[in-house]
Amino acid sequence: MSDDAFRPEARVPRGFADKRARELAAERSIVAAVSAVYERYGFEALDTPAFEFADALGKFLPDSDRPNEGVFALQDDDEQWLALRYDLTAPLARFAAQNWETLPKPFRRYAFGPVWRNEKPGPGRYREFIQCDADTVGSARPEADAEVIAMVAEGLEATGLERGDYLIKISSRRLLDALLDGMRIEGQGQRLAVLRAIDKLDRVGIPGVVELLGPGRLDASGDFTKGAGLETPLIMDLADFLAAPQGEIWPTLERIGGKYGAGDGISAGFGDLDRIVETLRRMGVGEDRARLDPSIVRGLEYYTGAVFEADLLLETTNEAGELIRFGSVGGGGRYDDLVARFTGERVPATGFSFGVSRLAAALRAARRSVIPEARGPVVVIAFDQAAMGDYMAMASELRAAGIPAEVYLGSSGMRAQMKYADRRLSPAAVIAGSDELAAGTVTIKDLDLGRELAKGIDDNAAWRAERPGQLTVPRGELVATVRRIVEG
Amino acid sequence: MSDDAFRPEARVPRGFADKRARELAAERSIVAAVSAVYERYGFEALDTPAFEFADALGKFLPDSDRPNEGVFALQDDDEQWLALRYDLTAPLARFAAQNWETLPKPFRRYAFGPVWRNEKPGPGRYREFIQCDADTVGSARPEADAEVIAMVAEGLEATGLERGDYLIKISSRRLLDALLDGMRIEGQGQRLAVLRAIDKLDRVGIPGVVELLGPGRLDASGDFTKGAGLETPLIMDLADFLAAPQGEIWPTLERIGGKYGAGDGISAGFGDLDRIVETLRRMGVGEDRARLDPSIVRGLEYYTGAVFEADLLLETTNEAGELIRFGSVGGGGRYDDLVARFTGERVPATGFSFGVSRLAAALRAARRSVIPEARGPVVVIAFDQAAMGDYMAMASELRAAGIPAEVYLGSSGMRAQMKYADRRLSPAAVIAGSDELAAGTVTIKDLDLGRELAKGIDDNAAWRAERPGQLTVPRGELVATVRRIVEG
Repeated sequence: MSDDAFRPEARVPRGFADKRARELAAERSIVAAVSAVYERYGFEALDTPAFEFADALGKFLPDSDRPNEGVFALQDDDEQWLALRYDLTAPLARFAAQNWETLPKPFRRYAFGPVWRNEKPGPGRYREFIQCDADTVGSARPEADAEVIAMVAEGLEATGLERGDYLIKISSRRLLDALLDGMRIEGQGQRLAVLRAIDKLDRVGIPGVVELLGPGRLDASGDFTKGAGLETPLIMDLADFLAAPQGEIWPTLERIGGKYGAGDGISAGFGDLDRIVETLRRMGVGEDRARLDPSIVRGLEYYTGAVFEADLLLETTNEAGELIRFGSVGGGGRYDDLVARFTGERVPATGFSFGVSRLAAALRAARRSVIPEARGPVVVIAFDQAAMGDYMAMASELRAAGIPAEVYLGSSGMRAQMKYADRRLSPAAVIAGSDELAAGTVTIKDLDLGRELAKGIDDNAAWRAERPGQLTVPRGELVATVRRIVEG
Repeated sequence: MSDDAFRPEARVPRGFADKRARELAAERSIVAAVSAVYERYGFEALDTPAFEFADALGKFLPDSDRPNEGVFALQDDDEQWLALRYDLTAPLARFAAQNWETLPKPFRRYAFGPVWRNEKPGPGRYREFIQCDADTVGSARPEADAEVIAMVAEGLEATGLERGDYLIKISSRRLLDALLDGMRIEGQGQRLAVLRAIDKLDRVGIPGVVELLGPGRLDASGDFTKGAGLETPLIMDLADFLAAPQGEIWPTLERIGGKYGAGDGISAGFGDLDRIVETLRRMGVGEDRARLDPSIVRGLEYYTGAVFEADLLLETTNEAGELIRFGSVGGGGRYDDLVARFTGERVPATGFSFGVSRLAAALRAARRSVIPEARGPVVVIAFDQAAMGDYMAMASELRAAGIPAEVYLGSSGMRAQMKYADRRLSPAAVIAGSDELAAGTVTIKDLDLGRELAKGIDDNAAWRAERPGQLTVPRGELVATVRRIVEG
């Protein structure tokens, strides 16, 4: 290749990331554990394409200030606009509308996979991430909401979280709808701006929400978000409600609601929630796992009833010793109008979605992960170039016995090969030079033992001289000897 | 929702498809089985993003006549072109170049996931499909090629294929390179056109390849593919080589090569291949699983040495009674220049990729699939609206005992609920009306037994009258009774 050839730079676009084996093992074990729970609840798997027609996805993303409304979109050959899915709910609504006649109803499905958001990337904020969802389409019953909540609680515990590590907060969009009706905040745009402002409570606190309910807010990076433009008395009342301590949220909401003539609507919303909570109790899910919290609104426009949010209560400290709270790992709710966008017929639906990478990061940081330590393969050292066939046969034998193994296939010498085995976290290395091969023996080095000794003993030279954990055995005992070391 | 509101049509874009539970179970079990084999060979998992910078992907797709060279591409906010990956090899080359200093070398990774091709869709030809790859980056050894081949053979068998169901064909791009050098076909464009023409042998036969080597070919759909424009004597010699029967391919190639002074180059290419085959023998992989076949070229431009193709030898008949051969389910080879595109430094690499959906379809059609029959959950019938809490508690108990279960949560009556349970392939239905609840009992219906009886007995009324497989037991025996039925 000539030196002046064009050379692209090897890098990923902003907001995208490669994932190595350890991170993948963590994410995959979460998805497997949660999928097993969802299947036990009678939910079936469904996969929809990465692309949908842009009009089928609709415009429900919170970050609508970006070009293309926060989605990755392009025109197909026939000029139609396609967009990459930004969640797994919009494609489900399209699928349900398309196949409604032939589906078993209610249709219960779970799904996991990447979603894409054309948003401003930042630390820990990616433009591609894995979601895992479960939804029931075709049931208006509060039991369907309760079931989703119970299932998420069980799913979170299946990933390694313990009781008390998380809390699922439940509210209803109808509570806030009644209050906003009473306050005569009726324009769709303004109403959505209010919902999104309240949804940011966790991130920006009461002062931030107050700014977002009013003229707007300038964030630390210098970006300005236009506010809902409410008048000060309304803002103060909403802030009172949001600032109420846990035990006083309900009375506060009723008091403020009463002021605006919204008392009946708020009572009706609480009626629905009571049935959800009662069902949860019958399913064995108590207040320690899921409970009412009317401050939850969820940022998405399409919710029509109950809304849920799963919060991690775990705290951990980062490398700088600062306290880290993980907060929300997912949310959901009832969206009874999403299928009707296609068919004109209302189909009640409810579901939940959580962020797999976010949960994996939290489990890792809180040391709740159930992922076993990554182990590398046994490495057969390529000691004698003429004996490569023998080495390949040894690795085949080990694999046939179920032991991960490989022959070192690079071109470096003995030292680099041992270093390679160490970096792969190999449990053992197999060494067979011409002497061993002639004598019908192999030498096996216990690398775990070596690592432990290296940690525990200051004078490395001493244990190196004794060659601990190194055994020379007849060739026929290769597999049995390695197995003893691997099974430790 | 008003009747004159805009309603998008519920459909997927051309060349994309939804996947239901059964198909997903088949694909996921293939990926899991193959991943386990790859890990046993010491390959580690890697996931790269869906998007790469377009220049990082390069232009290696066979279908380069399409807009955007066959990829889905769009401009990012900063005007840079991004493209969805069209395979898993180009992103690996980018990853290896980006992280070369810190990777354990050779770097052995496997990957699976969707890739996207902006090609003309057709029956069984999708614009999104799942690939599963394994590659060794940083080894020039023929043992690395042999290992990939052995691993693919073992991987295919892990998915349910038997010896004799498949054959991995091995050749070297160097053979054909030597012959084309001898024939003085030296322009890069013409050479690529020749490679792609030969690669289509399976699909278009010798007459089709002859057209593609000459002026071009008009396919059944009316699309014209421009040919390589070779002169007739060269075309005839290439066709002779391609038409040679299995035992005479090598002598034919040597004879034709000799005519163009390419004998030495061809011998050198065969030398490499002999080392691969010898290593395969040492690994226990015989001619029945992998063997030389110089007609294999692979359509991708970037191969520099050994090339492989996995062909299914299985035959089956379709619904019209016609014989179906599945042909290639994947391929690979050595690509020593792909990392150098980024770094300028040559890094030898070799790998294999197979199409997961294609293999799943073949396994299903040939009844080689190892996927167990999909079973639905036990359905608790929502008989008495006042007792929903009791039903939810019953389903919870069943799940806690590891038995998939759900309460019917729709609004239909008894008949529709039983039909629902049947469509979900539920093993059993639980029925508890007010009588049963008052008496502290539940009724359990064995739906598998019902299905069997319905199949075997013409007079359905008779077995219905006898209510076969229906038991009323004390409420406390719910779980034990259902378990007996489920475990059959």
